[in-house]
Amino acid sequence: MFAKRVVARAFTGNSFPKNFVVESDTWSFKGVRRFLKQCRSMPYSIVERGSQYGTDYRIYINDENGPVSPLHDIPLMLDADKKIFNMVVEVPRWTNTKMEITMKEVLNPIKQDVKKGKPRFVANCFPHHGYIWNYGALPQTWENPEHLDDGTGCKGDNDPIDVLEIGYRVAKRGEVLQVKVLGTIALIDEGETDWKLIAIDINDPSADQINDVSDVEKHFPGLLKASVEWFKIYKIPDGKPENHFAFNGEAKSAAFAHKIIDEVHAFWKTLIDKEVDAKGISCVNTTLDGSQFKMSRSEAEEVVKKTPEFVHPQPLEPIVDKWHYVHLK
Amino acid sequence: MFAKRVVARAFTGNSFPKNFVVESDTWSFKGVRRFLKQCRSMPYSIVERGSQYGTDYRIYINDENGPVSPLHDIPLMLDADKKIFNMVVEVPRWTNTKMEITMKEVLNPIKQDVKKGKPRFVANCFPHHGYIWNYGALPQTWENPEHLDDGTGCKGDNDPIDVLEIGYRVAKRGEVLQVKVLGTIALIDEGETDWKLIAIDINDPSADQINDVSDVEKHFPGLLKASVEWFKIYKIPDGKPENHFAFNGEAKSAAFAHKIIDEVHAFWKTLIDKEVDAKGISCVNTTLDGSQFKMSRSEAEEVVKKTPEFVHPQPLEPIVDKWHYVHLK
Repeated sequence: MFAKRVVARAFTGNSFPKNFVVESDTWSFKGVRRFLKQCRSMPYSIVERGSQYGTDYRIYINDENGPVSPLHDIPLMLDADKKIFNMVVEVPRWTNTKMEITMKEVLNPIKQDVKKGKPRFVANCFPHHGYIWNYGALPQTWENPEHLDDGTGCKGDNDPIDVLEIGYRVAKRGEVLQVKVLGTIALIDEGETDWKLIAIDINDPSADQINDVSDVEKHFPGLLKASVEWFKIYKIPDGKPENHFAFNGEAKSAAFAHKIIDEVHAFWKTLIDKEVDAKGISCVNTTLDGSQFKMSRSEAEEVVKKTPEFVHPQPLEPIVDKWHYVHLK
Repeated sequence: MFAKRVVARAFTGNSFPKNFVVESDTWSFKGVRRFLKQCRSMPYSIVERGSQYGTDYRIYINDENGPVSPLHDIPLMLDADKKIFNMVVEVPRWTNTKMEITMKEVLNPIKQDVKKGKPRFVANCFPHHGYIWNYGALPQTWENPEHLDDGTGCKGDNDPIDVLEIGYRVAKRGEVLQVKVLGTIALIDEGETDWKLIAIDINDPSADQINDVSDVEKHFPGLLKASVEWFKIYKIPDGKPENHFAFNGEAKSAAFAHKIIDEVHAFWKTLIDKEVDAKGISCVNTTLDGSQFKMSRSEAEEVVKKTPEFVHPQPLEPIVDKWHYVHLK
């Protein structure tokens, strides 16, 4: 790790993030080159704290100057003209550890959802393994639980808006991708509107050819149908009923999705501008000039430092991998 | 690792295998208990050599006295009356690293298949992720390439017979499972008969209720159909044609499968008894009394010791995770 940091500093002029975490300690020259390229193009890095699969595990996000909130500090749009969005990855494809941006903790780290006191794993429903996309959220968005959606007839789910990224690469937890939004499906999850945007990493080799929902079916035949089915059944093994979709499960266009994003971004603004009661949502940020919730970088560093140190993961129970055979009637 | 070995020795009276490899270095008391239980019930352990995902990577199998050949030394049957078989796991469920028992190397370690000079990864075909069962082989079996099968009209594929283990747990590479055989499908892979036995770990909680192919469809609805489809399409992304099945893709019964096992076990006997030309297959073993190919344990230890040391894995290219959208007409 030390060696890599030194090499990276030499190449990147000391701007290499201090706590950047990588997975392997053995590197080929090609690997180092690829890694450095990634460092240069990616302004965000992650800081892991606590013990993975434990209730104290947290992923904090840093930009080159220190901690940021993935909910408030990462800009929604990377390029407004080209409609390129930042997306924070919570659950990489083919994994089932239910990681999510915490709404109520300072700096909104990513942590594993806890159910009945235990870290939550989403049931694998045959033929799917874990989540079938890189799953995450758009920063600076909020699905307002007080807002009744015209189209779905339901209120928001009090979270940032969710994204299903369908590119070929399996992303990393806490990675910030640049995506274009292709459309959306409208899940009604336990009575709440829960938009699932469909997007693709702009660096995916096929991204240029995929611009709307119709292109998704053409290039990824069966994926939209599987996605709707996935959400319908994913809570059934936990004893919950089948979920439903607004619009008969049909995916809405990119233009429709962009309007929804405008809406949830505006809701987020009311939150950060204190126009509504945040009801426990932490609005602490480190980059929003003029914000009443702005915290200095050094204070933010202290917040992170006070959390339990990053240690080895907890052992996983084999039951986490069970394949559930759930079929819709 | 050291600490675990010490603890395990204290509990198991020094019979803990020296090179047993585990994944995590952090253990709860419960974890240690589970681990020790596993040690007591599992007479085999693995020794990794070389660099994973590199061409020099090897998994050797040890019993409590040292190296064995997974092809020749592990008994086919654990209990002949109850028809319980040993199975060597090559590719755990949801992985696509094409690991297999090497026929031509001394002690038949498990290694990654090499294609065009590069370690081979099997294409992920939507909606599947990697292999959809724990995939492996029955020891002491050989699909004789000189034998024309009556049922399939094709010759054997020169490998031990393959097994698809369908229990809930994701097994480890090189793990030796105890399974019961439920039936078989008859893949014709590039013109060769390639039986795929369907089996379940006898320790799976549902194993008692599953005794034949009809039970598979009842308890794992859709899995047999998906398995046939998986084999039909799995080489298409590599530019190969669709594979076919004998018997119209229908699974044959447990009784039929047991007869096939008797047959391929008899073929293996002709190999180890030098009744046929092995054509390069290594018959070296460390436990078969009277065998002309028997090697001492210390010589076998030397064979393993001469291979490249176990080091960190090679970095994986993201393309290994690509999802291919292949649909049958």
